[in-house]
Amino acid sequence: MDDSVYANYPPPLTPEQQEYLVSTVKTWALHHGLCVRPAPTFIDKEKDPQGVLATNAPVTLFPSPFPKSAFEHAVAIQKAYNELYARIARDEAWLGKIIEDLIDADDFVANLWKVHLAVKSEGYVQPLSLGLFRSDYIPHRPPGSAESSLRQVEFNTISSSFGGLSALVAALHTDLLSLPPGNPIAYPPHPILKGNNPPENTAVPTLANGLADAHKAYGPSKFDSPLPLCILFIVQAGERNLFDQLELSTRLATFHKIPVFRLATADIQNHTSIPPSNPSRPLIYTPPHSPSTPFEVTTIYLRGFYGPGDYPNPATWAARTHLERSAAIKCPSVLSQLSGCKKVQQVLADPNADTDHLAHFLPNTDAQTIAKIRATFAPQYDLSTSGRGCELALNPSTAANHVLKPQREGGGNNIYRDAIPGFLRSMPEKDWKGWILMELIQPPEAARNMMLRSDGEVLSRHVISELGVFGTVLWRDDGEIVHNKQGGWLLRTKGKESDEGGVAAGFSSLDSIVLL
Amino acid sequence: MDDSVYANYPPPLTPEQQEYLVSTVKTWALHHGLCVRPAPTFIDKEKDPQGVLATNAPVTLFPSPFPKSAFEHAVAIQKAYNELYARIARDEAWLGKIIEDLIDADDFVANLWKVHLAVKSEGYVQPLSLGLFRSDYIPHRPPGSAESSLRQVEFNTISSSFGGLSALVAALHTDLLSLPPGNPIAYPPHPILKGNNPPENTAVPTLANGLADAHKAYGPSKFDSPLPLCILFIVQAGERNLFDQLELSTRLATFHKIPVFRLATADIQNHTSIPPSNPSRPLIYTPPHSPSTPFEVTTIYLRGFYGPGDYPNPATWAARTHLERSAAIKCPSVLSQLSGCKKVQQVLADPNADTDHLAHFLPNTDAQTIAKIRATFAPQYDLSTSGRGCELALNPSTAANHVLKPQREGGGNNIYRDAIPGFLRSMPEKDWKGWILMELIQPPEAARNMMLRSDGEVLSRHVISELGVFGTVLWRDDGEIVHNKQGGWLLRTKGKESDEGGVAAGFSSLDSIVLL
Repeated sequence: MDDSVYANYPPPLTPEQQEYLVSTVKTWALHHGLCVRPAPTFIDKEKDPQGVLATNAPVTLFPSPFPKSAFEHAVAIQKAYNELYARIARDEAWLGKIIEDLIDADDFVANLWKVHLAVKSEGYVQPLSLGLFRSDYIPHRPPGSAESSLRQVEFNTISSSFGGLSALVAALHTDLLSLPPGNPIAYPPHPILKGNNPPENTAVPTLANGLADAHKAYGPSKFDSPLPLCILFIVQAGERNLFDQLELSTRLATFHKIPVFRLATADIQNHTSIPPSNPSRPLIYTPPHSPSTPFEVTTIYLRGFYGPGDYPNPATWAARTHLERSAAIKCPSVLSQLSGCKKVQQVLADPNADTDHLAHFLPNTDAQTIAKIRATFAPQYDLSTSGRGCELALNPSTAANHVLKPQREGGGNNIYRDAIPGFLRSMPEKDWKGWILMELIQPPEAARNMMLRSDGEVLSRHVISELGVFGTVLWRDDGEIVHNKQGGWLLRTKGKESDEGGVAAGFSSLDSIVLL
Repeated sequence: MDDSVYANYPPPLTPEQQEYLVSTVKTWALHHGLCVRPAPTFIDKEKDPQGVLATNAPVTLFPSPFPKSAFEHAVAIQKAYNELYARIARDEAWLGKIIEDLIDADDFVANLWKVHLAVKSEGYVQPLSLGLFRSDYIPHRPPGSAESSLRQVEFNTISSSFGGLSALVAALHTDLLSLPPGNPIAYPPHPILKGNNPPENTAVPTLANGLADAHKAYGPSKFDSPLPLCILFIVQAGERNLFDQLELSTRLATFHKIPVFRLATADIQNHTSIPPSNPSRPLIYTPPHSPSTPFEVTTIYLRGFYGPGDYPNPATWAARTHLERSAAIKCPSVLSQLSGCKKVQQVLADPNADTDHLAHFLPNTDAQTIAKIRATFAPQYDLSTSGRGCELALNPSTAANHVLKPQREGGGNNIYRDAIPGFLRSMPEKDWKGWILMELIQPPEAARNMMLRSDGEVLSRHVISELGVFGTVLWRDDGEIVHNKQGGWLLRTKGKESDEGGVAAGFSSLDSIVLL
């Protein structure tokens, strides 16, 4: 697949074609739950005081071409990546060495580490941990190279989102490619689109199955008079992206027949408890709407608590500690969340390391798979004062080819190109170690798509697409991998003029794939 | 079932229970397409210029108790009702006698009749007609009687709506009755609700199957070089209730693999044509987004053109005539639409008629079924100057037990009780024949429910519920009934203080049923 595919893709639309496509996408999205709550910048709270409105999630009108070899590469290594991060998360000594080095520079990492230390001093009671992971990539093709390779942007170990909506976008584009039956004319005819449906997207059954397997692995209630068991989704208050989450909770309730409750981070302490008299520390959730029916939580699925904004006060840190010390299986544990630090990614990628970390963590993985993982690493550097990272970051001509990322996950905080030297010089050098410098990935130059925003505006732009591949892994602290699966994917596409890519923040759109 | 069931139904809610129930219903509705476009009184056009927003359809929080015997009565006679109205619609002489009597009093009926006469003079080319009917009832129990009987409110022969959303409300209430799995606590415990799911609601497959059977019965393209075939939904511009319609078109496209297009009434003449050279008069639909791919329309499904507001100018009447003269199977034909006049209902119900119309139209139906149909007729009268109807309508004490209805379908135009004498006196007597006087049905006094409006407001009220039963029938003008099915239902519940019941107009809510 080279740039020539974009010469006439997506096909140009007449006004009538665009009107049909846009109105079909709008109504399809709302009809199938491919939606979000409208942003306050679109509909302010005052206009919808009860919070009843929804609008389409931001989506592309066409699926984006993606190199088949790169897609298959990403899918092929996901289970090894699952295992790698499971093994990192259980190697407290190895991870701790990295984290303790960040504590001065990053309050958030420091606070998470404190939670771990507090629970460790008391003793963990739950040997199992669950990861619903998503590894994110951009196809990399510097000018002159014939093939795209796959470069990892980041590995998400907490709140890996958009599995639900991504599967719906694949279904939307598949419908557009096939409707009306027998004479598909929703899109103008185009050779790339002919008979080329997006690959199957099993994100919802895969992610739900991960949670269901953890739920089962928890075993029976830890009370003599057993309580009913449930899974608890910890969520942000006023979550606009709740329909993505509902795909998973609905699948758990209807297919797996597992009770699921949603609990906002601020309400954890009010509605959950750990009876002091029970040394197993079961976590009890008492539904406020049915206080006479307490449930025992087998699995905590965090769709909140992933960034500093989720911890506005010490009580929220206490709530996180409260969850962490409980017998519920955490998705993720604090250690697993910390293993998603960019610094871990950089240490794994360091070509000058004394140890081959991949070989160390994946002793049973064949060399070819390890090489395939290693091939996804972009050149990246820490910013220790005398190192190569500093040189590249402070020199405007080399900085121009780099991005500076904070340890933490979640978009919106990266510093790009020319802005890097000045940004670094504006902060004390001791804080530099909170950041990683990564060589910019060079996606296809000519890629284009059209996007329908959540407020109904239609954009046509040069774009960059980022692939996410989902995986689920359940492991025991003794190293046993109980469950390890891959399934489902996400394509997010943003306008090239925008360096940041959070869909929820409105910068980018959910997309699907035509493999080429 | 007597009023004692309402003594503690619906069960009272704590604030926490109400909050949980309301937020669950809100998100469930949007997640499953149980939605409507927000009314301009809620979100004005200026705030959402692209028309992307949706909100929950107005729904009850609880299913409403409904007498099992009455429900079964309504279901049992639907196929006979289908046949009755099919036979009325094909008896132009019988129907014409009634209609010609209304022409002076009702412009709308007069114009419809003109469309029929115009096409008749040219000659109809399509022998088949399709009805997607809905017969509406209220359980009637005057003070002192032990059992509710079933009284028909009206028989809808055009644009019988809410099959799609009604099935979703049944699914919503079923989910609320069973979630979380194993320990249903979405509702407070209540004996009426225990294990008592709403009856199966097959409205979507039934109605879609009716359209699909008509599509097949149309036969092959009427061109030597065959065109692809499609079904055309004729809709109102800016339809707020389009998600109800999407349930049917989606089922037709995905299950029956039949192409469906939506066309607004104002666009009919621009995008459809009947080639003058083809004596079979096939209707060609040329999608504006793909003008090189014309389709031949097998079946026209009217979700517009049902009331005077749909005909703002002579061009719209010409468009209706254009559709009527085509070879497409009409759902409904003009004659079938006219057979839904209240006057027809009144003539059928007239105990003093010279002829037994039911026996005449249903010669092959057993006497018991005919008696069951007759039992659903409320006492009703025309307003011929010397008749019983006038007496009852003009006397305030008897008017107080009646409702005055125009011939036309569609809520919002009825005159109730004390208002009747003054209203009649304010119009010329010659126009009285445009109206029917019907004895008011006396629904259970104590019925209550809670309703979530589309703007998020929650109401708790004494209510009246109206049952609709769906049926589909395809007939030939020679009298052959090709297809006759019953399936699916609708319960609409309105606050008792409101005399009118249009859900789309915001007066009432979609509901489901617990049979008692």
